[in-house]
Amino acid sequence: MQSLRPIRRALISVSDKTGVVEFAQQLSDMNIDILSTGGTAKLLAENNIPVTEVSSYTGFPEMMDGRIKTLHPKIHGALLGRRGTDDAVMNEHGIEGIDLLCVNLYPFEQTVAKDDCTLNDAIENIDIGGPTMLRAAAKNHNDVTVVVDHNDYSKVISALKQSSGTEFDLRFMLATKTFAHTAKYDGAIANYLSARLENKEQANDFPETFSLQFNKAQDMRYGENPHQKAAFYVEDNAKEASVATAKQLQGKALSFNNVADTDAALECVKSFQSPACVIVKHANPCGVAKGKDILEAYNLAYQTDPTSAFGGIIAFNRELDKATASAIIDRQFVEVIIAPKISADAIEIVSNKKNVRLLACGEWQSAEPGLDFKRVNGGLLVQDRDLGSIGMNDLKIVSKRTPTEQEIRDLLFSWKVAKFVKSNAIVYAKNEQTIGVGAGQMSRVYSAKIAGIKAADENLVVKGSVMASDAFFPFRDGIDSAAEAGITSVIQPGGSMRDEEVIAAADEHDMAMVFTGMRHFRH
Amino acid sequence: MQSLRPIRRALISVSDKTGVVEFAQQLSDMNIDILSTGGTAKLLAENNIPVTEVSSYTGFPEMMDGRIKTLHPKIHGALLGRRGTDDAVMNEHGIEGIDLLCVNLYPFEQTVAKDDCTLNDAIENIDIGGPTMLRAAAKNHNDVTVVVDHNDYSKVISALKQSSGTEFDLRFMLATKTFAHTAKYDGAIANYLSARLENKEQANDFPETFSLQFNKAQDMRYGENPHQKAAFYVEDNAKEASVATAKQLQGKALSFNNVADTDAALECVKSFQSPACVIVKHANPCGVAKGKDILEAYNLAYQTDPTSAFGGIIAFNRELDKATASAIIDRQFVEVIIAPKISADAIEIVSNKKNVRLLACGEWQSAEPGLDFKRVNGGLLVQDRDLGSIGMNDLKIVSKRTPTEQEIRDLLFSWKVAKFVKSNAIVYAKNEQTIGVGAGQMSRVYSAKIAGIKAADENLVVKGSVMASDAFFPFRDGIDSAAEAGITSVIQPGGSMRDEEVIAAADEHDMAMVFTGMRHFRH
Repeated sequence: MQSLRPIRRALISVSDKTGVVEFAQQLSDMNIDILSTGGTAKLLAENNIPVTEVSSYTGFPEMMDGRIKTLHPKIHGALLGRRGTDDAVMNEHGIEGIDLLCVNLYPFEQTVAKDDCTLNDAIENIDIGGPTMLRAAAKNHNDVTVVVDHNDYSKVISALKQSSGTEFDLRFMLATKTFAHTAKYDGAIANYLSARLENKEQANDFPETFSLQFNKAQDMRYGENPHQKAAFYVEDNAKEASVATAKQLQGKALSFNNVADTDAALECVKSFQSPACVIVKHANPCGVAKGKDILEAYNLAYQTDPTSAFGGIIAFNRELDKATASAIIDRQFVEVIIAPKISADAIEIVSNKKNVRLLACGEWQSAEPGLDFKRVNGGLLVQDRDLGSIGMNDLKIVSKRTPTEQEIRDLLFSWKVAKFVKSNAIVYAKNEQTIGVGAGQMSRVYSAKIAGIKAADENLVVKGSVMASDAFFPFRDGIDSAAEAGITSVIQPGGSMRDEEVIAAADEHDMAMVFTGMRHFRH
Repeated sequence: MQSLRPIRRALISVSDKTGVVEFAQQLSDMNIDILSTGGTAKLLAENNIPVTEVSSYTGFPEMMDGRIKTLHPKIHGALLGRRGTDDAVMNEHGIEGIDLLCVNLYPFEQTVAKDDCTLNDAIENIDIGGPTMLRAAAKNHNDVTVVVDHNDYSKVISALKQSSGTEFDLRFMLATKTFAHTAKYDGAIANYLSARLENKEQANDFPETFSLQFNKAQDMRYGENPHQKAAFYVEDNAKEASVATAKQLQGKALSFNNVADTDAALECVKSFQSPACVIVKHANPCGVAKGKDILEAYNLAYQTDPTSAFGGIIAFNRELDKATASAIIDRQFVEVIIAPKISADAIEIVSNKKNVRLLACGEWQSAEPGLDFKRVNGGLLVQDRDLGSIGMNDLKIVSKRTPTEQEIRDLLFSWKVAKFVKSNAIVYAKNEQTIGVGAGQMSRVYSAKIAGIKAADENLVVKGSVMASDAFFPFRDGIDSAAEAGITSVIQPGGSMRDEEVIAAADEHDMAMVFTGMRHFRH
């Protein structure tokens, strides 16, 4: 079945009209008959391209305000008829094959995203004829060429010009895209309707049936471990600069763990306005700092935990410059460097280490709302992305002592870092540099201990540092342990049954303590 | 539009024939005309239910080996015609409304799961007419009742018996299910085809376009944090006993973190054949033990880290009995208890603590292959579930000293636990009880230190314990630190550039060391 199929007749009816006039013109120039409907027919006719209205082809009128146009055996026989096998029956019923179908659907998500879209509007906009033709043509891709994406027009035209027909591989690829298109369309309808089972005009945040679709960006050598196979998928229209939109400028292919860690590093560094650097290892920030420039920020971030920084992922919120690139490459083994932009001379520097993955993700604007998933066996936990953030005015001072200006700066800095440290998370920081990071413990006091141990091991002075905790302290022990290490000020959500005891502990140690009223578990 | 719709004519054409004869009989008894096709028409006729073949209704023959049966304006006008608005045009064209559509599609996944299914077979099995009718009827749910699931037959029959018609809410719910059904169908086709873009007869493990669908099990009060909204979704046909299939016998609704932690605890306890208990807190096992029964296992698991066990999730691999339930309830605050079964008197005991979530997940067989996901901003990492496991024969002894029988037992035990501890993971264990768990560190040596500190803090004797590491030791420091704590035997994947140095360290300390050749990162 790997054979060339000529195109004699095309049906064109598109919502996205990009390039359709040129496409139709070229088809017409090759003496291909064109059937069309509605707005597309009108547009082509206005451009002096000869078109036949579908209704005059079928001999059956459009009816019910367009609900019935193409749902006719003359159309579907023409799309589904197997050339060679069904020729006789097609002749008998006056069915002339349609060899090319060019249809795309107005994205249902966009229909319902309009503020004034009612349930009735949404339902009226559900296309029945379009998906049916697309599915029929895609099923019969052995004989029929089906185009849903204007980016594929040129492929079809060049095939026709080169060999007067399309080859099976092209038709198969186009058919595959078509079923992805119809699956996505019906998934969006199911999401929309099933969010309204309880209340027709006010959607539930989470539909009863949740349909999702992703596009593969990359097959991976393996997953989190070598015995697991893996691939990286991206959203169709990711708007925000992210690891998913980043362009790799050099280096080995990204691994599963690279992508996860780069995401953590980049999302963390996005929290800072002034030049900052985040180094991630094993899913946790192991060094974060702000600086007058990213070179200073990198040097400070590296100081926190040079051992962990080895083989780490480094993210910046400014263009990577030559000096910073050199500092990294000269000093340490690094897996991934990501920044909004990479200067030409930084690219040059990094090219001396061929394996280093260098990524430019573009500049980001504000964070887009979105969904976060956590997989469990047999199911999926779905939640809003954690976009919670606090500013100086959200802080509630609960201790007797008010934090100094410097402490407040450090408290806000350490809080931003703690959000990206795995729970239970404790972050010690001073002068907007992490001094110790206590991650991933089953009880909070151990995270506090670890932050202190790590700071001491690196000869970093905890005295005068602040401490952030991603959730409240259930007991005073974490505060006592921090005070002993030299912590002078604490930021935490508050809300424990023992807040009083915890505040009393802070007061005893003359610590300043602020509550955020917001928790940042990240497991 | 909230109004009753009578049913005068039904079209029935189903792949899953469960209950369809009875359903059609009841419709027929209510003087509803029945249209049908193919196998369904034959079945109904054999059961003496009057049916009209669709082809005699449309006046257009079935053609192309059934490719064209229902794609006719008389069918689609009958499904799409708006009662009241389109009556005149329907009359003009001799279209009599179809008020009830009962169609379901043979699951495409099942078609292609057959060993001998070729690409051609798969494509031939793609249904065009069925989804078109379903979509048309579902769009026109204001007037038409559409049924895809035999479980809904009784709802329709009782509506007809009670009020001689269906109400809008029922029709809306049924239409919603219909679009979920067609979305899933086309998603499966897209997954199948797009895994074959490179090689038509040999699928890639990961399709180019990945379509997924989940069903909501529960809306949650909030997500990982109170400012995040959340819901829990489950797979359509989860086969393996899991948190997703578990039945909640009592207690507050499961929270987002409860589900995630229960999954971790349950999947870990499944690794053991003899009675075992796993206590999870903040996504990590904080105590794991085997015992002669689950009561002993629980007592030992609790000993590892009583502080963390407070408010933890406890999983068992045997029926929860009265004695174990009492031991838990008497001793500690617990969020969730899960076991394959819960005895009646254990239910009774737990009922004294109304808030405790008690879950019975059923007995498990072997683990089902499946996919694991990790969300990143703008994308999704997809990999095989980590089903890697090793047995005694996979161990490669690399040290001079061979581990004793007791050490081998403990090495295999600690390895199973380490697989479920967040990376970097170090587990100390003795007599099949965890002695110290070092979790979630950015460098391995700190995990080893933490395991030792925690054991000491709980007055557990490390001397004579074994150590598991989820990945290789990059340096000898982790071994030295473990030896100092009293560890006598080590299990780890091996594969570091410095394996020789690490083995030499083990030999210096007279430790037995085995390599697994398998890594278990879990971030």
